[in-house]
This record gives sequence, C-alpha cells and structure tokens, in this order.
Amino acid sequence: MRATILRPGGDVRVESVPDARVEQPRDAVVRVCHAAVCGSDLWRYRDRTPAGPIRPGHEFVGVVEALGPDATGLRVGQVVLAPFAWSDGACEHCLAGLPTSCPAGAVFGDNADGAQAEAVRVRYADANLVPLPMDRDDSRLPAVLTLADVMSTGHHAATCARVAPGATVAVIGDGAVGLCAAAAARRLGAAHVVVLSHHHARGELARRLGADTVVHERGPAAAERVRELTGGRGADAVLECVGTAGSWADALATVRDGGAIGYVGLPHGVALDPAAFFDRNLTLSGGIAPARRYIPHLLPELLSGSLDPSGVFDHRVGLADVADAYRAMHTRTAVKALITP
Amino acid sequence: MRATILRPGGDVRVESVPDARVEQPRDAVVRVCHAAVCGSDLWRYRDRTPAGPIRPGHEFVGVVEALGPDATGLRVGQVVLAPFAWSDGACEHCLAGLPTSCPAGAVFGDNADGAQAEAVRVRYADANLVPLPMDRDDSRLPAVLTLADVMSTGHHAATCARVAPGATVAVIGDGAVGLCAAAAARRLGAAHVVVLSHHHARGELARRLGADTVVHERGPAAAERVRELTGGRGADAVLECVGTAGSWADALATVRDGGAIGYVGLPHGVALDPAAFFDRNLTLSGGIAPARRYIPHLLPELLSGSLDPSGVFDHRVGLADVADAYRAMHTRTAVKALITP
Repeated sequence: MRATILRPGGDVRVESVPDARVEQPRDAVVRVCHAAVCGSDLWRYRDRTPAGPIRPGHEFVGVVEALGPDATGLRVGQVVLAPFAWSDGACEHCLAGLPTSCPAGAVFGDNADGAQAEAVRVRYADANLVPLPMDRDDSRLPAVLTLADVMSTGHHAATCARVAPGATVAVIGDGAVGLCAAAAARRLGAAHVVVLSHHHARGELARRLGADTVVHERGPAAAERVRELTGGRGADAVLECVGTAGSWADALATVRDGGAIGYVGLPHGVALDPAAFFDRNLTLSGGIAPARRYIPHLLPELLSGSLDPSGVFDHRVGLADVADAYRAMHTRTAVKALITP
Repeated sequence: MRATILRPGGDVRVESVPDARVEQPRDAVVRVCHAAVCGSDLWRYRDRTPAGPIRPGHEFVGVVEALGPDATGLRVGQVVLAPFAWSDGACEHCLAGLPTSCPAGAVFGDNADGAQAEAVRVRYADANLVPLPMDRDDSRLPAVLTLADVMSTGHHAATCARVAPGATVAVIGDGAVGLCAAAAARRLGAAHVVVLSHHHARGELARRLGADTVVHERGPAAAERVRELTGGRGADAVLECVGTAGSWADALATVRDGGAIGYVGLPHGVALDPAAFFDRNLTLSGGIAPARRYIPHLLPELLSGSLDPSGVFDHRVGLADVADAYRAMHTRTAVKALITP
C-alpha cells in the first residue's frame, strides 16, 4: 500500500510500504477515507534532526476492512472514527476516562501505523474505533474527522479552563485547534469569545466558528486589547492552543485574576515561574486531550450539524500530494489539510 | 507602643513605635491578644538583603480599641479576627470572592501595620474584621487565629486541588500550612491523607491533625512511597505547601495522571516546564489564599471545636521574646510561634 514517510529535514514522500494487516487478536485494518495533517506534525516537519523516518498521521475516518477475532462490536464495511491516540480500554486510566495515560497506548504515527496512508492498522480496535451511522461518501465525514483531534482538543481546552455560560474567553492561537477551541467555548455558553490571531485572513473563519472578536495585535498590545474588551479584568478563561513561550506569555497576560488557562498546545521551550502568578490565583489545567472520552459526547452534534468545525479544512489533497499539504500548512497558506487517498 | 522590627540579616527586635491610630474613616485600631510568626516571615528573616526594616506580622486576634466614623458594623471592645491581607471589600475582585487581588489591599506587615505588636491599625476595618462571639481570654482564640492564614491557606490548597470525599491526598510540607492542609483534606472527606515530612518529630502532630500516614523519605523515594500507598497511581490531589524547586518536584512526582496540585507555598526559584507534564493532564491551581472569603465559612467549626488546628502553635512567647520565636522556627525547633503581647 502507499503511505506517507516523513524524513529529517522536512522530506515528505509517499512510498510503498507493507500492507496494514491484523497482527493481534484485537486489531482492525481500516481503509482510510479521509486523513489530515496536524499542527503537531509540523513540529516534526520543521525539526532538522528527528530520530529517523516516521509514518505520520493520527487523524482518520475510514472503513473497516479486516478484524481480529477479539475486535468485538465492529463489522467489516463499517465506517469508523478513531481518536488520535489508541489505548487498551481496560486499564485503570482508560476506565477513569484518561485513555491518553494508558500504558499500552500511543499516538497513531508516533512510532508506526500512521494514518496519512491508504490504510492503517488499529490496535485494540474494539476500545478505540467508534462506528459512524453513515456511508463512506457522507459529506459530514470531514466535520466528524475533527473529533479525532482538533475539535476534541479544543473542547479539552475549554472544559479544563472551566468555560461556563456567561464566561469571557480568550483563545491564544488561530490554528485548527484554536479555531475549534473558539467553537467549543461558544458551544459551552461563553458570552464573549476573543481569538488572538496574527493572521488577518483567518479572522472570517474564526468568526464563523464561534469568535465574537478577533484581535490581531501581538504580545502586550494583544493582552491590553483583551483587557479593554473585558472591562479591564482579563478573560475568565484562556485557551492556550500554541505551546510556545510567547503564547504562554500572552495567556498569562490575558487571563483575569482567579481565572483559568486551559493548555492544549504542545509545549516547546516554555518555563513557568509560579511566583509570577501566585498573587493572581491562576489555575492551569490541560494537556493531551482524552479524545476517546469526548467523541461519543460530541458526536451527536457533529451528526446533526449543530456543531460544524469542518471549515478548518481549507486545503484538500490526494495522498500523492501530501507534501503540498505540509508545505501549505508550514507557510500558513492553509489552516489544515484534508487528505483523501 | 511596642512593635517588632525586622532588619536585614535576621535582626529582630521589639522597639517603641508611634501608637497605632485611626487615620482614615474606615480604620480601626485593634489591641492584639495573640499574634503569630508565619513561615513566610522566615523568608525575610533569612534574606540577607531585604529592602529595609519592616514591621512584620500578618496574623492576629484582638480587641477593637478605636473606630473611624465609617468603620461600620463593629464596636469598641469587640474581639475580632482579621485575614492576613486587607482589602476594601468593594472592588470587583472583593465582590467576586478574591480579596487578595483587591488593588487597595496588601498583606499586614508587608509595608506597615505589622501585627507582631501591641496594637495594629486595620484599614477598611468594616470589610476585614470578623467579630468573634467570645471574650479576650477564650481558650479557642489560638485555634481561631489559624484562620487568619495557615488554616485558610491549607483549605485553599485542598479546595484548589479539588479534594473530595474518597480522594487520596499527599501534602508536601510539614510546616503549619502543611499540617493545616492535612486537616483541610481530612475535613473534606479524603480517604487517605499522606504528609511528606523530613522532620521526624512532626509525625505525631501531623497524625493528630489529619494525616493517616507520614512519609519521611526525600525526593524520588518519597514519591515512590506515595505511589506504593496509592496502589501505584499517585495521589488524586497534592497540596504543595513549601514553594521550593524540590517541593514542586515532589509534587509533580507524587500526583496521579489527571490529578491536581493545589499550590500555596510562596514560590522561590521554581521553574515549571509544561512539556514535562503535558502527557499527564495535570491541573495546577492555587496561589495566595483569599482568607477573608474562607473565614466565615470555617469559623463555626473552629468555634465548635470540630476543627482544631491550634496544635500548630507549639511555641509561645511574650512580645519581648519575639526574636526567640523567629530563631525557634528558623531552626525548625518550633512549628509555629504564638505571641501574646
């Protein structure tokens, strides 16, 4: 089969690899209908010295093609969604709703089984794959695909930051996660959602997905603008969707005293001094999103269309052109690329 | 009147200072019945280069001696308790229950009006002083005094860390705040309270106040012991009551994935890398305790005796001997000193 290979130096190619196959009793093989490129893939794309070639891709919807004998509750031909990380569904963490801490788990594509491919092997398929009541041509598939990662991650930011009806919310970041975080805050009843975006062209999309206001200033000027917009207080909840030292500085400058930062941007080079916010009684809550927990909760709204983040996909390519997708996202020409093998 | 003066180099003396007096319409003067030395005073005591002489002390119960015309709801002769920081009771933060963020507020003794003295000026007295239904000789006064800071701060750690019935809780620190945090966790229904203490003699006191288990190991061995005690998981809630790089390392090593750290130790030299706990979905919540909010909530239990943290006062001195109190706490001979002018 064909699959994407990412090598040191941003070298992305589609190559022939051994077919995905059932290797363990709980495995499934899923033929990919749609996959995506994630902002976190770009960290590796830009990295000049990754450990070696990887098989990227952790977002996909597809059709079950083969099942191991213990992959129960599924049938061949079913359209399914997977969370970006698999887990065994049986450990204490899985049972507690934190599948991302499952010792048997991993992110698709981190070591193997990347989804930017024609097919993907899914471990513990019975615990991870969520059957979808639709066929492979359903126009809602891209919207549903956002639950694999970016919409679940945006929802995680908003719930960790305790967004509640009437809250003022600032979203740091205008990538797909930031845009989905705005949608999540809106969905949870926020009274005012402000998105910090350095990218003028994304304002319209942010507004369509849930932002009331888009702030284009950078650094202290952005925080000052958020304070103006929130009666001098700062935001009740800040959703940190980038993970850099600068975005954390924006988050800390933007949140009100006693407020909460929901952090979901993969941190790179951030150092926090709690003395700097001790007097302000801040809460920091977040991390890698337990998407498998959120999918059943959010799926009905994606199916009904009351929640539709599919607008984050503003670039569509065939598998053969996946390198274009990386380039477009790297240069910020595209928010997020949808791959249709 | 006589008051404590703290000068650079740990020089503590009691000297004559101008009498405390009503200077603003909302002021009161309170004659001190009991004051205390706080762990945070020791940071300044040990500091070789503080800004200059200060008048320390932010914990006191006393008797109202004089009132300004706008210090309503109080009467001369009343026994009262103050929180460690005053606030104006009228700003947005005060009304939202976060008086420590009041722009007009400050900690007693930080710049003026220290309570390790015969009397203290209280600003915005109507908003800060809590009348107590007792006379000045009541034996419950030391217990009630803990609400000024250490018991309220321990409660803040426990509530920020979301301690709930059945929780496993690890307390980092065996100072007065740590001991009160153990009492707070017990009060909130924790199933198992573990206190990390490097000080063998404090084990009995910790147990009396609420600890089920006292762990004397240090560093990784302490965290390993907490994991053993919590079925391999780590604690649901960790109460960080010290504020050093080492205590934060213990907190991070001790908390379970998905758990919360309630941080109330004044941070000194701590740098947190969220990448180190991103995959573990940790929540950090805390800061300077809004004691004025907690006092009315907890006071009935102190009055009834169902909550009694007075055991933290294991050293009692007259005002003239306040230097002894600092020395005893600095050398960890005493947990906390009670001063009776």
